[in-house]
Amino acid sequence: MQTPKRPGRPSTIENASDSILQEAARLFAVTGYDGASISQISDALGITKPAIYHYFPSKRAIYDEIILRMLDGLYETVSTKVTELPPGRRQLRQFMLSHAAFLEENFWGFAAMLVGFGGMDDVETKAEAVVIRDRYEALLRRIICDAMAVGELRDVDVVTTGRAILSMLNWMARWFRPGGAQSAAEIAETYFTLIADGITQPPEPSTTAGA
Amino acid sequence: MQTPKRPGRPSTIENASDSILQEAARLFAVTGYDGASISQISDALGITKPAIYHYFPSKRAIYDEIILRMLDGLYETVSTKVTELPPGRRQLRQFMLSHAAFLEENFWGFAAMLVGFGGMDDVETKAEAVVIRDRYEALLRRIICDAMAVGELRDVDVVTTGRAILSMLNWMARWFRPGGAQSAAEIAETYFTLIADGITQPPEPSTTAGA
Repeated sequence: MQTPKRPGRPSTIENASDSILQEAARLFAVTGYDGASISQISDALGITKPAIYHYFPSKRAIYDEIILRMLDGLYETVSTKVTELPPGRRQLRQFMLSHAAFLEENFWGFAAMLVGFGGMDDVETKAEAVVIRDRYEALLRRIICDAMAVGELRDVDVVTTGRAILSMLNWMARWFRPGGAQSAAEIAETYFTLIADGITQPPEPSTTAGA
Repeated sequence: MQTPKRPGRPSTIENASDSILQEAARLFAVTGYDGASISQISDALGITKPAIYHYFPSKRAIYDEIILRMLDGLYETVSTKVTELPPGRRQLRQFMLSHAAFLEENFWGFAAMLVGFGGMDDVETKAEAVVIRDRYEALLRRIICDAMAVGELRDVDVVTTGRAILSMLNWMARWFRPGGAQSAAEIAETYFTLIADGITQPPEPSTTAGA
């Protein structure tokens, strides 16, 4: 799980808990949250169950931490990338490409998050996750509005356009697998072209050729 | 669950099993497959557990039947609608609108299907489901190809365009709820316009106005 490190933790703990989170994410994504057990995680890592409980009080705590790290990492990565560019079409393209690249780099964590974001248990943690998710959606909407303001996008419904874009990107967790013919960013590039330029054949400029 | 009736079953059994499927779908969609129990289904319907086992041998059998009915109903409904129109842009629009309308009418079954299609247990049933899903994707790709052939869509990557469209429509199961300000078909109409026409501001025809 290559998300930004939280400050103040020694790196050995960071590494051990990172391994637990990574293995747990893979299991949650493959078997679902309910189907995965702490025993399976400890078996896969070749450690004992108490070693896991040393870092996390419960399976739910592992799950919540995965979701928070994913959302946090996604927001930080993508917002850093897009602020390198001025407002406009290219900034929207950058948003889509960095989102897809993050999904690929953190594939299992991302897939685990989308499997069951709604199932988060701890009320405070869930509230924190919702705040980050809303901030992320707001970032995308601002990018769309800014691109409209500079005249590069036409006057579209910002909320629905944002949803359309996130739907395309997030649904990748369902069918995309790293290591295939195309990278996630390449697919996002095609998605960007589809939604930016549309798929309608423009009318031919002047020639009135039949058939 | 308003899917096409399978032939050869008496209608009283159809009604009882329909109620079970409907209640089970809502539960699976809300709590996930593992979180839902036969007891919860029987409690919600005010019937006994044996009454449920009279129709379905297991929770998994209920789940598999929901997925099959959803896929079957989706394919039948949408393919009937689109074949009423000639190939072209409008046929693609019809595909998106009927898919969304089916999602809204069969909301919980649809949401349950998307929660855990991968988790189907019975190998034969899963193979049947995969066949229907593939046939549905093939239908969409044929619509896109046909619209390109008649010159109404530009030369796009058919597979990725099909995926983009299904992503937008399927992700609705995650955030859309029936009874809101917009119907699912209205949202699909906006999605169609976005992907058909694109969101880029076209260059102004001739006036070279600055700022």
